[in-house]
Amino acid sequence: MDDRPVLGLDADDTLWENEVHFRETERRFVELMAPWADGSTTEAALLDTERANVAITGYGVKSFILSMVETAISLSDGAIGAEPISRVLEWGRQMLEAPVALLPDVAETIGTLADAHRLLLITKGDLTDQRRKVDASGLADHFWRIEIVAEKDTPTYRDILGRHGIDATRFVMVGNSVPSDVLPVLEAGGRAIHIPHDLTWALETATDSDIDGHEFPVLRNFGELPALLTGWRDPG
Amino acid sequence: MDDRPVLGLDADDTLWENEVHFRETERRFVELMAPWADGSTTEAALLDTERANVAITGYGVKSFILSMVETAISLSDGAIGAEPISRVLEWGRQMLEAPVALLPDVAETIGTLADAHRLLLITKGDLTDQRRKVDASGLADHFWRIEIVAEKDTPTYRDILGRHGIDATRFVMVGNSVPSDVLPVLEAGGRAIHIPHDLTWALETATDSDIDGHEFPVLRNFGELPALLTGWRDPG
Repeated sequence: MDDRPVLGLDADDTLWENEVHFRETERRFVELMAPWADGSTTEAALLDTERANVAITGYGVKSFILSMVETAISLSDGAIGAEPISRVLEWGRQMLEAPVALLPDVAETIGTLADAHRLLLITKGDLTDQRRKVDASGLADHFWRIEIVAEKDTPTYRDILGRHGIDATRFVMVGNSVPSDVLPVLEAGGRAIHIPHDLTWALETATDSDIDGHEFPVLRNFGELPALLTGWRDPG
Repeated sequence: MDDRPVLGLDADDTLWENEVHFRETERRFVELMAPWADGSTTEAALLDTERANVAITGYGVKSFILSMVETAISLSDGAIGAEPISRVLEWGRQMLEAPVALLPDVAETIGTLADAHRLLLITKGDLTDQRRKVDASGLADHFWRIEIVAEKDTPTYRDILGRHGIDATRFVMVGNSVPSDVLPVLEAGGRAIHIPHDLTWALETATDSDIDGHEFPVLRNFGELPALLTGWRDPG
Protein backbone atom coordinates (compact mmCIF):
# COMPACT_ATOMS: atom_id res chain seq x y z
CA MET A 1 0.00 0.00 0.00
CA ASP A 2 1.58 3.22 -1.20
CA ASP A 3 0.60 5.92 1.28
CA ARG A 4 2.93 8.64 0.11
CA PRO A 5 1.04 11.94 -0.26
CA VAL A 6 -0.24 12.86 -3.71
CA LEU A 7 1.33 15.91 -5.34
CA GLY A 8 -0.71 17.38 -8.20
CA LEU A 9 1.26 19.02 -10.98
CA ASP A 10 -0.04 21.24 -13.75
CA ALA A 11 1.76 20.70 -17.06
CA ASP A 12 1.67 23.67 -19.48
CA ASP A 13 3.88 26.52 -18.22
CA THR A 14 4.51 24.66 -14.97
CA LEU A 15 6.62 21.75 -16.29
CA TRP A 16 7.21 22.93 -19.85
CA GLU A 17 6.85 25.97 -22.07
CA ASN A 18 3.45 26.38 -23.71
CA GLU A 19 2.16 29.94 -23.76
CA VAL A 20 5.29 31.08 -25.61
CA HIS A 21 4.10 29.11 -28.66
CA PHE A 22 0.71 30.80 -28.52
CA ARG A 23 2.34 34.24 -28.19
CA GLU A 24 4.68 33.61 -31.09
CA THR A 25 1.77 32.48 -33.28
CA GLU A 26 -0.29 35.46 -32.17
CA ARG A 27 2.58 37.75 -33.18
CA ARG A 28 2.53 36.22 -36.66
CA PHE A 29 -1.22 36.57 -36.74
CA VAL A 30 -0.99 40.28 -35.92
CA GLU A 31 1.40 40.69 -38.87
CA LEU A 32 -0.94 38.73 -41.12
CA MET A 33 -3.84 41.00 -40.22
CA ALA A 34 -1.83 44.23 -40.59
CA PRO A 35 -3.56 45.18 -43.88
CA TRP A 36 -6.88 45.29 -42.01
CA ALA A 37 -6.22 46.10 -38.38
CA ASP A 38 -3.51 47.37 -36.04
CA GLY A 39 -1.94 45.05 -33.48
CA SER A 40 -4.05 45.92 -30.48
CA THR A 41 -7.29 45.66 -32.49
CA THR A 42 -6.28 42.21 -33.76
CA GLU A 43 -5.26 41.03 -30.29
CA ALA A 44 -8.50 42.27 -28.74
CA ALA A 45 -10.63 40.72 -31.50
CA LEU A 46 -8.86 37.37 -31.17
CA LEU A 47 -9.29 37.34 -27.40
CA ASP A 48 -13.00 38.17 -27.79
CA THR A 49 -13.41 35.28 -30.23
CA GLU A 50 -11.55 32.90 -27.92
CA ARG A 51 -13.63 33.97 -24.95
CA ALA A 52 -16.85 33.43 -26.93
CA ASN A 53 -15.73 30.01 -28.19
CA VAL A 54 -14.08 28.44 -25.16
CA ALA A 55 -17.24 26.96 -23.64
CA ILE A 56 -18.05 25.24 -26.94
CA THR A 57 -14.65 24.34 -28.36
CA GLY A 58 -12.63 23.98 -25.15
CA TYR A 59 -8.92 24.69 -24.67
CA GLY A 60 -5.91 23.93 -26.78
CA VAL A 61 -4.30 24.49 -30.14
CA LYS A 62 -7.19 23.39 -32.37
CA SER A 63 -9.55 25.85 -30.69
CA PHE A 64 -6.93 28.58 -31.02
CA ILE A 65 -6.54 27.93 -34.75
CA LEU A 66 -10.31 27.92 -35.32
CA SER A 67 -10.56 31.21 -33.41
CA MET A 68 -7.79 32.76 -35.53
CA VAL A 69 -9.47 31.72 -38.78
CA GLU A 70 -12.79 33.10 -37.56
CA THR A 71 -11.16 36.37 -36.43
CA ALA A 72 -9.25 36.74 -39.71
CA ILE A 73 -12.42 36.45 -41.77
CA SER A 74 -14.32 38.81 -39.53
CA LEU A 75 -11.60 41.49 -39.17
CA SER A 76 -10.96 41.50 -42.93
CA ASP A 77 -14.69 41.66 -43.58
CA GLY A 78 -14.39 38.54 -45.71
CA ALA A 79 -11.60 39.98 -47.86
CA ILE A 80 -8.86 37.65 -46.64
CA GLY A 81 -7.83 34.98 -49.13
CA ALA A 82 -7.25 31.26 -48.88
CA GLU A 83 -3.46 31.57 -48.83
CA PRO A 84 -3.24 33.48 -45.51
CA ILE A 85 -5.79 31.09 -43.99
CA SER A 86 -3.71 28.11 -44.99
CA ARG A 87 -0.77 29.81 -43.29
CA VAL A 88 -2.78 29.93 -40.06
CA LEU A 89 -3.47 26.18 -40.40
CA GLU A 90 0.23 25.56 -40.94
CA TRP A 91 1.10 27.45 -37.74
CA GLY A 92 -1.33 25.18 -35.93
CA ARG A 93 0.44 22.12 -37.23
CA GLN A 94 3.78 23.57 -36.14
CA MET A 95 2.41 24.14 -32.64
CA LEU A 96 1.09 20.57 -32.50
CA GLU A 97 4.50 19.27 -33.51
CA ALA A 98 6.69 21.67 -31.51
CA PRO A 99 9.40 20.12 -29.32
CA VAL A 100 8.66 20.14 -25.59
CA ALA A 101 11.01 22.46 -23.69
CA LEU A 102 11.13 21.76 -19.94
CA LEU A 103 11.16 24.78 -17.64
CA PRO A 104 14.27 25.47 -15.49
CA ASP A 105 14.99 22.94 -12.70
CA VAL A 106 12.12 20.62 -13.70
CA ALA A 107 14.37 17.84 -15.02
CA GLU A 108 16.62 18.10 -11.94
CA THR A 109 13.78 18.24 -9.39
CA ILE A 110 11.09 15.87 -10.60
CA GLY A 111 12.88 12.70 -9.45
CA THR A 112 13.21 14.02 -5.89
CA LEU A 113 9.52 14.92 -5.87
CA ALA A 114 8.58 11.50 -7.27
CA ASP A 115 10.52 9.73 -4.50
CA ALA A 116 8.50 11.37 -1.74
CA HIS A 117 5.12 11.68 -3.51
CA ARG A 118 2.79 10.02 -5.90
CA LEU A 119 2.82 12.56 -8.75
CA LEU A 120 -0.56 13.25 -10.37
CA LEU A 121 -0.39 15.30 -13.56
CA ILE A 122 -3.56 17.35 -14.03
CA THR A 123 -3.85 19.27 -17.26
CA LYS A 124 -6.55 20.57 -19.56
CA GLY A 125 -6.57 20.95 -23.33
CA ASP A 126 -6.66 18.63 -26.31
CA LEU A 127 -6.33 14.98 -25.30
CA THR A 128 -4.13 14.06 -28.24
CA ASP A 129 -1.84 17.05 -27.90
CA GLN A 130 -1.46 16.80 -24.12
CA ARG A 131 -0.61 13.08 -24.38
CA ARG A 132 1.96 13.85 -27.06
CA LYS A 133 3.61 16.43 -24.83
CA VAL A 134 3.71 14.06 -21.85
CA ASP A 135 5.43 11.47 -24.02
CA ALA A 136 7.81 13.98 -25.58
CA SER A 137 8.70 15.51 -22.19
CA GLY A 138 10.59 12.43 -21.06
CA LEU A 139 8.86 12.78 -17.67
CA ALA A 140 6.10 10.19 -18.14
CA ASP A 141 7.74 7.55 -15.94
CA HIS A 142 7.67 9.89 -12.94
CA PHE A 143 3.90 10.25 -12.93
CA TRP A 144 1.70 8.00 -10.81
CA ARG A 145 -1.40 9.01 -12.79
CA ILE A 146 -2.30 11.46 -15.54
CA GLU A 147 -5.59 13.34 -15.73
CA ILE A 148 -6.44 15.34 -18.84
CA VAL A 149 -9.65 17.23 -18.12
CA ALA A 150 -12.01 19.60 -19.91
CA GLU A 151 -11.98 22.23 -17.15
CA LYS A 152 -10.00 22.72 -13.94
CA ASP A 153 -12.72 23.83 -11.58
CA THR A 154 -13.68 22.74 -8.06
CA PRO A 155 -16.10 19.96 -9.12
CA THR A 156 -13.38 18.53 -11.38
CA TYR A 157 -10.81 18.49 -8.56
CA ARG A 158 -13.34 16.93 -6.17
CA ASP A 159 -14.10 14.28 -8.77
CA ILE A 160 -10.40 13.52 -9.31
CA LEU A 161 -9.70 13.29 -5.57
CA GLY A 162 -12.71 11.03 -5.09
CA ARG A 163 -11.90 8.69 -7.96
CA HIS A 164 -8.31 8.22 -6.89
CA GLY A 165 -9.18 7.89 -3.19
CA ILE A 166 -7.13 10.94 -2.23
CA ASP A 167 -7.68 12.71 1.10
CA ALA A 168 -8.04 16.40 0.16
CA THR A 169 -6.26 17.57 3.31
CA ARG A 170 -3.13 15.68 2.25
CA PHE A 171 -3.31 16.86 -1.38
CA VAL A 172 -1.11 19.65 -2.73
CA MET A 173 -1.46 21.10 -6.24
CA VAL A 174 1.29 23.05 -8.01
CA GLY A 175 0.78 25.26 -11.03
CA ASN A 176 1.21 28.58 -12.77
CA SER A 177 -2.47 29.50 -13.02
CA VAL A 178 -4.23 30.92 -9.96
CA PRO A 179 -7.77 30.37 -11.39
CA SER A 180 -7.03 26.80 -12.57
CA ASP A 181 -4.39 25.39 -10.24
CA VAL A 182 -4.81 27.26 -6.94
CA LEU A 183 -8.27 28.65 -6.09
CA PRO A 184 -10.40 25.60 -7.04
CA VAL A 185 -8.02 23.31 -5.12
CA LEU A 186 -8.28 25.44 -1.97
CA GLU A 187 -12.06 25.40 -2.43
CA ALA A 188 -11.96 21.59 -2.62
CA GLY A 189 -10.13 21.44 0.72
CA GLY A 190 -6.59 20.91 -0.55
CA ARG A 191 -3.50 23.07 -0.53
CA ALA A 192 -1.87 24.76 -3.51
CA ILE A 193 1.41 26.33 -4.51
CA HIS A 194 1.64 28.99 -7.18
CA ILE A 195 4.68 29.14 -9.44
CA PRO A 196 3.99 32.07 -11.76
CA HIS A 197 5.20 31.95 -15.35
CA ASP A 198 6.10 35.25 -16.96
CA LEU A 199 3.72 34.46 -19.83
CA THR A 200 0.14 33.78 -18.81
CA TRP A 201 -2.91 33.81 -21.07
CA ALA A 202 -5.42 36.57 -20.27
CA LEU A 203 -8.12 33.96 -19.54
CA GLU A 204 -5.85 32.35 -16.91
CA THR A 205 -5.18 35.38 -14.73
CA ALA A 206 -6.93 36.09 -11.45
CA THR A 207 -8.01 39.50 -10.18
CA ASP A 208 -7.13 40.75 -6.70
CA SER A 209 -10.71 40.19 -5.59
CA ASP A 210 -10.55 36.54 -6.74
CA ILE A 211 -7.49 36.01 -4.57
CA ASP A 212 -8.71 38.07 -1.60
CA GLY A 213 -8.89 35.99 1.56
CA HIS A 214 -6.93 33.06 0.12
CA GLU A 215 -3.43 32.22 1.26
CA PHE A 216 -0.99 30.15 -0.70
CA PRO A 217 2.78 30.15 -1.16
CA VAL A 218 4.26 31.62 -4.30
CA LEU A 219 7.56 30.24 -5.55
CA ARG A 220 9.84 31.75 -8.15
CA ASN A 221 11.06 28.46 -9.46
CA PHE A 222 10.19 24.77 -9.66
CA GLY A 223 13.49 23.95 -7.92
CA GLU A 224 12.21 25.54 -4.69
CA LEU A 225 9.43 22.95 -4.36
CA PRO A 226 11.16 20.11 -2.44
CA ALA A 227 12.27 22.40 0.40
CA LEU A 228 8.81 23.91 0.80
CA LEU A 229 7.10 20.52 0.71
CA THR A 230 9.51 19.07 3.26
CA GLY A 231 8.75 21.98 5.57
CA TRP A 232 5.00 21.38 5.17
CA ARG A 233 5.30 17.66 5.82
CA ASP A 234 7.61 17.94 8.81
CA PRO A 235 6.77 21.25 10.47
CA GLY A 236 9.83 21.97 12.57
CA MET B 1 -18.05 -2.94 -1.70
CA ASP B 2 -19.77 -2.89 -5.06
CA ASP B 3 -18.77 -6.09 -6.86
CA ARG B 4 -21.21 -5.90 -9.74
CA PRO B 5 -19.43 -6.54 -13.04
CA VAL B 6 -18.31 -3.53 -15.06
CA LEU B 7 -20.00 -3.01 -18.41
CA GLY B 8 -18.11 -0.71 -20.78
CA LEU B 9 -20.22 1.35 -23.16
CA ASP B 10 -19.09 3.29 -26.17
CA ALA B 11 -20.98 6.58 -26.64
CA ASP B 12 -21.07 7.92 -30.22
CA ASP B 13 -23.30 5.76 -32.45
CA THR B 14 -23.77 3.26 -29.64
CA LEU B 15 -25.84 5.38 -27.23
CA TRP B 16 -26.59 8.35 -29.44
CA GLU B 17 -26.40 9.51 -33.05
CA ASN B 18 -23.07 11.02 -34.07
CA GLU B 19 -21.89 9.95 -37.50
CA VAL B 20 -25.10 11.29 -39.05
CA HIS B 21 -23.97 14.84 -38.20
CA PHE B 22 -20.62 14.25 -39.86
CA ARG B 23 -22.32 12.80 -42.96
CA GLU B 24 -24.76 15.70 -43.21
CA THR B 25 -21.90 18.21 -42.93
CA GLU B 26 -19.88 16.26 -45.46
CA ARG B 27 -22.86 16.41 -47.84
CA ARG B 28 -22.90 20.21 -47.51
CA PHE B 29 -19.14 20.28 -47.99
CA VAL B 30 -19.46 18.32 -51.23
CA GLU B 31 -21.97 20.93 -52.47
CA LEU B 32 -19.67 23.74 -51.41
CA MET B 33 -16.80 22.25 -53.39
CA ALA B 34 -18.91 21.52 -56.49
CA PRO B 35 -17.32 24.38 -58.50
CA TRP B 36 -13.94 22.67 -58.14
CA ALA B 37 -14.49 18.95 -57.72
CA ASP B 38 -17.13 16.25 -58.10
CA GLY B 39 -18.54 14.51 -55.04
CA SER B 40 -16.34 11.46 -54.99
CA THR B 41 -13.18 13.54 -55.49
CA THR B 42 -14.14 15.81 -52.59
CA GLU B 43 -14.99 12.85 -50.33
CA ALA B 44 -11.73 11.08 -51.14
CA ALA B 45 -9.67 14.24 -50.63
CA LEU B 46 -11.34 14.95 -47.29
CA LEU B 47 -10.75 11.39 -46.08
CA ASP B 48 -7.10 11.60 -47.13
CA THR B 49 -6.71 14.84 -45.17
CA GLU B 50 -8.41 13.36 -42.11
CA ARG B 51 -6.24 10.26 -42.27
CA ALA B 52 -3.09 12.39 -42.50
CA ASN B 53 -4.18 14.63 -39.61
CA VAL B 54 -5.67 12.20 -37.10
CA ALA B 55 -2.41 11.31 -35.35
CA ILE B 56 -1.68 15.01 -34.77
CA THR B 57 -5.11 16.54 -34.25
CA GLY B 58 -7.00 13.56 -32.81
CA TYR B 59 -10.70 12.78 -33.21
CA GLY B 60 -13.77 14.95 -33.05
CA VAL B 61 -15.52 17.92 -34.58
CA LYS B 62 -12.68 20.46 -34.34
CA SER B 63 -10.32 18.14 -36.22
CA PHE B 64 -13.03 17.53 -38.82
CA ILE B 65 -13.54 21.27 -39.38
CA LEU B 66 -9.80 21.89 -39.68
CA SER B 67 -9.56 19.05 -42.21
CA MET B 68 -12.46 20.50 -44.24
CA VAL B 69 -10.87 23.96 -44.35
CA GLU B 70 -7.54 22.45 -45.40
CA THR B 71 -9.22 20.31 -48.07
CA ALA B 72 -11.25 23.26 -49.38
CA ILE B 73 -8.15 25.39 -49.88
CA SER B 74 -6.23 22.56 -51.48
CA LEU B 75 -9.02 21.31 -53.81
CA SER B 76 -9.80 24.85 -54.99
CA ASP B 77 -6.08 25.50 -55.46
CA GLY B 78 -6.39 28.51 -53.17
CA ALA B 79 -9.30 30.03 -55.11
CA ILE B 80 -11.94 29.51 -52.42
CA GLY B 81 -12.96 32.70 -50.62
CA ALA B 82 -13.44 33.62 -46.99
CA GLU B 83 -17.23 33.37 -47.13
CA PRO B 84 -17.38 29.63 -47.90
CA ILE B 85 -14.72 28.99 -45.26
CA SER B 86 -16.76 30.84 -42.65
CA ARG B 87 -19.68 28.60 -43.62
CA VAL B 88 -17.55 25.55 -42.79
CA LEU B 89 -16.77 27.08 -39.37
CA GLU B 90 -20.47 27.70 -38.81
CA TRP B 91 -21.28 24.03 -39.57
CA GLY B 92 -18.72 23.11 -36.94
CA ARG B 93 -20.44 25.27 -34.39
CA GLN B 94 -23.78 23.68 -35.30
CA MET B 95 -22.30 20.22 -34.78
CA LEU B 96 -20.88 21.25 -31.40
CA GLU B 97 -24.31 22.52 -30.35
CA ALA B 98 -26.46 19.80 -31.93
CA PRO B 99 -29.06 18.17 -29.68
CA VAL B 100 -28.19 14.65 -28.56
CA ALA B 101 -30.52 12.05 -30.07
CA LEU B 102 -30.48 8.71 -28.23
CA LEU B 103 -30.51 5.58 -30.35
CA PRO B 104 -33.55 3.23 -30.23
CA ASP B 105 -34.11 1.37 -26.92
CA VAL B 106 -31.22 3.13 -25.14
CA ALA B 107 -33.44 5.21 -22.84
CA GLU B 108 -35.58 2.14 -22.04
CA THR B 109 -32.65 -0.24 -21.47
CA ILE B 110 -29.95 1.74 -19.68
CA GLY B 111 -31.65 1.61 -16.27
CA THR B 112 -31.84 -2.20 -16.38
CA LEU B 113 -28.18 -2.39 -17.34
CA ALA B 114 -27.21 0.04 -14.58
CA ASP B 115 -29.01 -2.08 -11.96
CA ALA B 116 -26.92 -5.16 -12.70
CA HIS B 117 -23.62 -3.50 -13.69
CA ARG B 118 -21.33 -0.62 -12.96
CA LEU B 119 -21.53 1.25 -16.27
CA LEU B 120 -18.25 2.65 -17.55
CA LEU B 121 -18.57 5.02 -20.49
CA ILE B 122 -15.48 4.89 -22.69
CA THR B 123 -15.36 7.35 -25.55
CA LYS B 124 -12.78 9.19 -27.60
CA GLY B 125 -12.88 12.64 -29.16
CA ASP B 126 -12.86 16.20 -27.89
CA LEU B 127 -13.05 16.38 -24.09
CA THR B 128 -15.34 19.41 -24.07
CA ASP B 129 -17.70 18.08 -26.73
CA GLN B 130 -17.93 14.57 -25.28
CA ARG B 131 -18.70 15.97 -21.80
CA ARG B 132 -21.37 18.20 -23.29
CA LYS B 133 -23.01 15.22 -24.99
CA VAL B 134 -22.94 13.14 -21.80
CA ASP B 135 -24.65 15.99 -19.95
CA ALA B 136 -27.17 16.61 -22.75
CA SER B 137 -27.98 12.90 -23.10
CA GLY B 138 -29.75 12.76 -19.75
CA LEU B 139 -27.89 9.48 -19.09
CA ALA B 140 -25.09 10.82 -16.88
CA ASP B 141 -26.59 9.52 -13.61
CA HIS B 142 -26.48 5.94 -14.89
CA PHE B 143 -22.71 5.92 -15.36
CA TRP B 144 -20.39 4.69 -12.64
CA ARG B 145 -17.38 6.33 -14.31
CA ILE B 146 -16.65 8.17 -17.55
CA GLU B 147 -13.41 7.83 -19.51
CA ILE B 148 -12.72 10.17 -22.42
CA VAL B 149 -9.54 8.97 -24.09
CA ALA B 150 -7.33 9.99 -26.98
CA GLU B 151 -7.29 6.53 -28.60
CA LYS B 152 -9.18 3.28 -27.99
CA ASP B 153 -6.40 0.75 -28.38
CA THR B 154 -5.29 -2.21 -26.28
CA PRO B 155 -2.84 -0.24 -24.07
CA THR B 156 -5.60 2.27 -23.32
CA TYR B 157 -8.07 -0.47 -22.30
CA ARG B 158 -5.40 -2.15 -20.15
CA ASP B 159 -4.68 1.17 -18.48
CA ILE B 160 -8.39 1.82 -17.82
CA LEU B 161 -8.93 -1.66 -16.39
CA GLY B 162 -5.85 -1.32 -14.20
CA ARG B 163 -6.69 2.12 -12.88
CA HIS B 164 -10.25 1.15 -11.95
CA GLY B 165 -9.23 -2.21 -10.50
CA ILE B 166 -11.32 -4.16 -13.02
CA ASP B 167 -10.70 -7.85 -13.64
CA ALA B 168 -10.46 -8.12 -17.45
CA THR B 169 -12.14 -11.53 -17.51
CA ARG B 170 -15.26 -10.00 -15.94
CA PHE B 171 -15.25 -6.93 -18.21
CA VAL B 172 -17.57 -6.60 -21.21
CA MET B 173 -17.38 -3.73 -23.72
CA VAL B 174 -20.25 -2.74 -26.02
CA GLY B 175 -19.91 -0.56 -29.10
CA ASN B 176 -20.47 0.03 -32.78
CA SER B 177 -16.83 0.05 -33.87
CA VAL B 178 -15.00 -3.24 -34.31
CA PRO B 179 -11.51 -1.62 -34.36
CA SER B 180 -12.19 0.61 -31.32
CA ASP B 181 -14.72 -1.23 -29.15
CA VAL B 182 -14.22 -4.92 -29.90
CA LEU B 183 -10.78 -6.07 -31.07
CA PRO B 184 -8.60 -4.16 -28.55
CA VAL B 185 -10.85 -5.32 -25.68
CA LEU B 186 -10.53 -8.97 -26.72
CA GLU B 187 -6.78 -8.42 -26.95
CA ALA B 188 -6.78 -7.03 -23.41
CA GLY B 189 -8.47 -10.19 -22.14
CA GLY B 190 -12.04 -8.92 -21.94
CA ARG B 191 -15.19 -9.70 -23.84
CA ALA B 192 -16.96 -7.45 -26.34
CA ILE B 193 -20.32 -7.11 -28.02
CA HIS B 194 -20.70 -5.42 -31.38
CA ILE B 195 -23.83 -3.41 -32.13
CA PRO B 196 -23.30 -2.12 -35.67
CA HIS B 197 -24.65 1.29 -36.65
CA ASP B 198 -25.69 1.74 -40.25
CA LEU B 199 -23.39 4.77 -40.50
CA THR B 200 -19.75 4.10 -39.66
CA TRP B 201 -16.78 6.31 -40.50
CA ALA B 202 -14.32 4.76 -42.96
CA LEU B 203 -11.53 4.97 -40.37
CA GLU B 204 -13.67 2.92 -37.91
CA THR B 205 -14.33 -0.12 -40.07
CA ALA B 206 -12.48 -3.41 -39.78
CA THR B 207 -11.42 -5.66 -42.62
CA ASP B 208 -12.18 -9.38 -42.70
CA SER B 209 -8.56 -10.15 -41.93
CA ASP B 210 -8.69 -7.91 -38.83
CA ILE B 211 -11.65 -9.88 -37.54
CA ASP B 212 -10.37 -13.30 -38.58
CA GLY B 213 -10.02 -15.66 -35.61
CA HIS B 214 -11.97 -13.41 -33.21
CA GLU B 215 -15.40 -14.32 -31.95
CA PHE B 216 -17.87 -11.85 -30.53
CA PRO B 217 -21.64 -11.53 -30.53
CA VAL B 218 -23.28 -9.05 -32.87
CA LEU B 219 -26.60 -7.53 -31.84
CA ARG B 220 -29.03 -5.62 -34.02
CA ASN B 221 -30.21 -3.37 -31.27
CA PHE B 222 -29.26 -1.97 -27.86
CA GLY B 223 -32.45 -3.44 -26.42
CA GLU B 224 -31.10 -6.97 -26.94
CA LEU B 225 -28.24 -6.38 -24.48
CA PRO B 226 -29.82 -7.35 -21.13
CA ALA B 227 -30.88 -10.80 -22.35
CA LEU B 228 -27.45 -11.57 -23.80
CA LEU B 229 -25.65 -10.36 -20.66
CA THR B 230 -27.93 -12.40 -18.39
CA GLY B 231 -27.14 -15.49 -20.43
CA TRP B 232 -23.40 -14.81 -20.15
CA ARG B 233 -23.56 -14.23 -16.40
CA ASP B 234 -25.74 -17.23 -15.62
CA PRO B 235 -24.88 -19.83 -18.24
CA GLY B 236 -27.85 -22.25 -18.23
